[in-house]
Amino acid sequence: MTLASESIAQPVDAAKFKQFEPLIAKYNEAKWAQMKEFDAKFLELCRSKIPSDAVLDAEPIDARKFVTSAGLLSESEAQIVNEFSIKELLDKQLAGELSAEQITRAYIKSAIIAQLATNCVMQFLIPSALERAKELDLYLKENGKLFGPMHGVPISLKEQMGYKGQVTCASYVSLIDNVVKKSSVSIQIFDKLGAVFHARTSQPQAIMHLDTWNNIIGRTRNPCSTRLSPGGSSGGESAMVAMHGSAIGIGSDIGGSIRCPAAFTNVFGLKPTTKRLSSMNGISGGRGQESIPSTEGPIARSIQDLEYFMDVYLNQGKPWEYDPTSLVIPWRPAEVEEKIRIGVLFDDNLVTPHPAVKRALQQVVSQLGEQFEIVDLADSWFSQEEMLAIHNTTLSLYTIDGNRSQLELISPSGEPILPLTKHFLNFGQGKELSIYDNRKLNIFRDSTKLALLERFFSQSPTSKKLHFILSPTYPAPSEIPGNSLYWGYTSFWNLTDYPNVVFPTSYTHDPKLDSLPPTQLKQNEFEESVWSNYNPDAYVGGPVGLQLTGKRFDDERIVQAVKKITSVLK
Amino acid sequence: MTLASESIAQPVDAAKFKQFEPLIAKYNEAKWAQMKEFDAKFLELCRSKIPSDAVLDAEPIDARKFVTSAGLLSESEAQIVNEFSIKELLDKQLAGELSAEQITRAYIKSAIIAQLATNCVMQFLIPSALERAKELDLYLKENGKLFGPMHGVPISLKEQMGYKGQVTCASYVSLIDNVVKKSSVSIQIFDKLGAVFHARTSQPQAIMHLDTWNNIIGRTRNPCSTRLSPGGSSGGESAMVAMHGSAIGIGSDIGGSIRCPAAFTNVFGLKPTTKRLSSMNGISGGRGQESIPSTEGPIARSIQDLEYFMDVYLNQGKPWEYDPTSLVIPWRPAEVEEKIRIGVLFDDNLVTPHPAVKRALQQVVSQLGEQFEIVDLADSWFSQEEMLAIHNTTLSLYTIDGNRSQLELISPSGEPILPLTKHFLNFGQGKELSIYDNRKLNIFRDSTKLALLERFFSQSPTSKKLHFILSPTYPAPSEIPGNSLYWGYTSFWNLTDYPNVVFPTSYTHDPKLDSLPPTQLKQNEFEESVWSNYNPDAYVGGPVGLQLTGKRFDDERIVQAVKKITSVLK
Repeated sequence: MTLASESIAQPVDAAKFKQFEPLIAKYNEAKWAQMKEFDAKFLELCRSKIPSDAVLDAEPIDARKFVTSAGLLSESEAQIVNEFSIKELLDKQLAGELSAEQITRAYIKSAIIAQLATNCVMQFLIPSALERAKELDLYLKENGKLFGPMHGVPISLKEQMGYKGQVTCASYVSLIDNVVKKSSVSIQIFDKLGAVFHARTSQPQAIMHLDTWNNIIGRTRNPCSTRLSPGGSSGGESAMVAMHGSAIGIGSDIGGSIRCPAAFTNVFGLKPTTKRLSSMNGISGGRGQESIPSTEGPIARSIQDLEYFMDVYLNQGKPWEYDPTSLVIPWRPAEVEEKIRIGVLFDDNLVTPHPAVKRALQQVVSQLGEQFEIVDLADSWFSQEEMLAIHNTTLSLYTIDGNRSQLELISPSGEPILPLTKHFLNFGQGKELSIYDNRKLNIFRDSTKLALLERFFSQSPTSKKLHFILSPTYPAPSEIPGNSLYWGYTSFWNLTDYPNVVFPTSYTHDPKLDSLPPTQLKQNEFEESVWSNYNPDAYVGGPVGLQLTGKRFDDERIVQAVKKITSVLK
Repeated sequence: MTLASESIAQPVDAAKFKQFEPLIAKYNEAKWAQMKEFDAKFLELCRSKIPSDAVLDAEPIDARKFVTSAGLLSESEAQIVNEFSIKELLDKQLAGELSAEQITRAYIKSAIIAQLATNCVMQFLIPSALERAKELDLYLKENGKLFGPMHGVPISLKEQMGYKGQVTCASYVSLIDNVVKKSSVSIQIFDKLGAVFHARTSQPQAIMHLDTWNNIIGRTRNPCSTRLSPGGSSGGESAMVAMHGSAIGIGSDIGGSIRCPAAFTNVFGLKPTTKRLSSMNGISGGRGQESIPSTEGPIARSIQDLEYFMDVYLNQGKPWEYDPTSLVIPWRPAEVEEKIRIGVLFDDNLVTPHPAVKRALQQVVSQLGEQFEIVDLADSWFSQEEMLAIHNTTLSLYTIDGNRSQLELISPSGEPILPLTKHFLNFGQGKELSIYDNRKLNIFRDSTKLALLERFFSQSPTSKKLHFILSPTYPAPSEIPGNSLYWGYTSFWNLTDYPNVVFPTSYTHDPKLDSLPPTQLKQNEFEESVWSNYNPDAYVGGPVGLQLTGKRFDDERIVQAVKKITSVLK
């Protein structure tokens, strides 16, 4: 029995929650109204071709086909959302071959398909997106040039990002009518760069699941296999991007929330070194918490689009002009070594990865073959004992205020505490520690950060320095809803603030090849929680995305390395 | 009556403290032994010319004359320490006109004079400095090039910086025999760059006074007027640098600890944006505290030396290769505007500056005249009410762990709690707050940081953006020992993490011109504490240093602006 099969929790305060139910209903009706108003016939057609929620929830359906081959989009629409990179979209607008409105309409359609298939949308912004697209077309016509480097490019936004004049609730029911006055800095930047915003996507309750499930819209499905989870907390984004519902999306990551979703849905995700992108004017239950900072980052279908996003965001957007907590570090030209030295972490010494993950990693390593130097980290990685100390520190830091900040946002609505929220609130036993304790944990965190630098990324008499570390993103190839229990493969890099890119592989869980659990389990509670009920049939269609890590502020170099790796893998 | 005239506090635990007294005596004897061993005759000569401690403590003696004109140094020694910039020292070594040993010997002599006049040294490193200098001379001879960009340049070090194989106690008596295994990252860097380390300088108890007084060596005097304070907590450094006892010094600043000492002793000091320089492997009672981060920074006799220090530290030293918490931001070429727009803050709306400070600021502003655009911030600065909220937030954050981290270092020796330590421990009433409260204060801090950016450093419909803000460094022209009570003019910029350079003016307190307190005092406890006993005669010889602030990460631009300002003031 899995968490997912437990009945979803009851409201903590049923009477209070009852008062919010009409607001939730209204919130969700607005979505239907916008889809209908945009194109009622198209909506009808989609509903006829896309299975019901019940079927999607029960079957391992690859929902991406509804965009790529189900005939729901016209040929030209399909070409726009399936074939063109961001740069091509810009070139074609400049050449007069496509208009911003055509692009926007195509992406609105694919976003509607995404919504029907995966339930990834919190709020559509269809009317304003169309208006914006028309303005951009007019601008290009009148000025003979693009408005900016994201002219007419539809971007999807994790809903926790403040959006001026719109409800921004971050999936907290208590904030269901919280209309904000300021857009998040990233939205302000992309607005100035010419982007179009057509959809705001879902995040889980508390924004702290590696899954996407909340009390406002329910659960989001994985496009690769609809009965699976799209990951989280940016699972609305990963579903949207994987469904080709936007050209690129913005998520955020404090424990894996960009990288797990990217891996689970077979797309690219970057968790940059923190403070390079701005998170200002967003809602978060961890506001003011600085021990493990969160960061925004892109989720994309290609490493080129992801790189372009970072380039224009930093070099033309200059977040530091809006947000004084942002670092003044442009997106810098970067090179990688002729022969890249990659340390491979097959196992973090706490939780054994699933057979599919192990197989994918082995295959990738053998494909990289001669062109890369591969160093197996099995003997040099932190021991189980060290990793327990590190992971428990991470867990304690997430809940170190005794969850007061989170409960302050959750409690006022009386909403049910979902199973993975409960799981999270119980990290570090949910204990409130003292500021003194917090400092000691910060010091321990920094010693881990230093150990990483000295053991792996510095030349030493006994070992060559690594350029990058390749590892699983998550123990499983995607996950059963409600079952994303172990964060360690990603949260380790949040504690230490080393940047990573997750990239898709061509490997997918295969119940025939990947049926056997490890013969011997490690003796720790995390291993046990992951392996207690291994059911290889449940993971059908789950893709394996891998995680490449570099030194702090080596974001640019990691992107270059992933380009090189993925070109070899092709 | 001033705090300074109170008798120094009794040991908290006299029996315990008694056990440490022989260790303290031994620690201080080593200093005498090194001076004697270096040159007993020279020491004798110095003692004959420099007044006794009692006289120095009682009179407003300008001790700088002992280096510049008292005949204690030979002509060539005097030239080395009084006339040459760092770059000239390098050039002359390369040209064979000076050796590292000559330079080191001259600076050791001036450091000995500095010690006798101001009591600024915790520990000399004379034998190893001489040995190092000889090695450098040999290197140059054998290789025909300098070892590095600080070849043979004597640098003084705030003692809290770890020094491999030496006691590092940060003025905590409990650590008086704490021999450390690792040098601080900055020392490692300057070692690689070819510097010579000959002296480690004093800091106050808890490293949290704007003064320099501890239970190991007592109080440090101000070279400009020996009965005054050299500021703190890097007052050992400021005294040393102002006495020409080192070519340049390294201090640290969490509330004014580089800038007050620089202003009090008429030299330059930079508090960079945090995390640009590394503070790794140092001792601090605030370790693990992240709400108001501390930073290291240079104290120098010229802005050119200061700039050179930053350039080689960042561009050749690359602290991020040692310290993974350091930002990867090189020292960048920077330009300032043709006509610089400076907002002038004559008064922070909490504490009225002394007449001497006001006069200096007014004079400087009128000297800047046509070449700069001056904007008086009187009407646009934060109100008294806002400033109270901001300053009280700062004070609370300093002691937010209920001083547990500090007391853990102070208590084991039973050492007396000095009056300014008591003053500091009582910031925010010394109350231990919760992590939840800490987060709220962090959020408030960031809103202040943002308000600064939006109100002053951004273009708006109603105002032009400022390039820099010019303000007092401290309410008084230097300070009476034990009387540095109000930190607001500097700590404001620690809370918000905006970088500043302090530069000397030619203005000094004049009891005739500066005798009158303000006719009307502001109604708040800080104003009251500063003005309750104004005695204009006490400040004779106190110089006024001013503080120039720029946007976060505009460190390079501030340095350029200070160059321009000081060239106009000349």
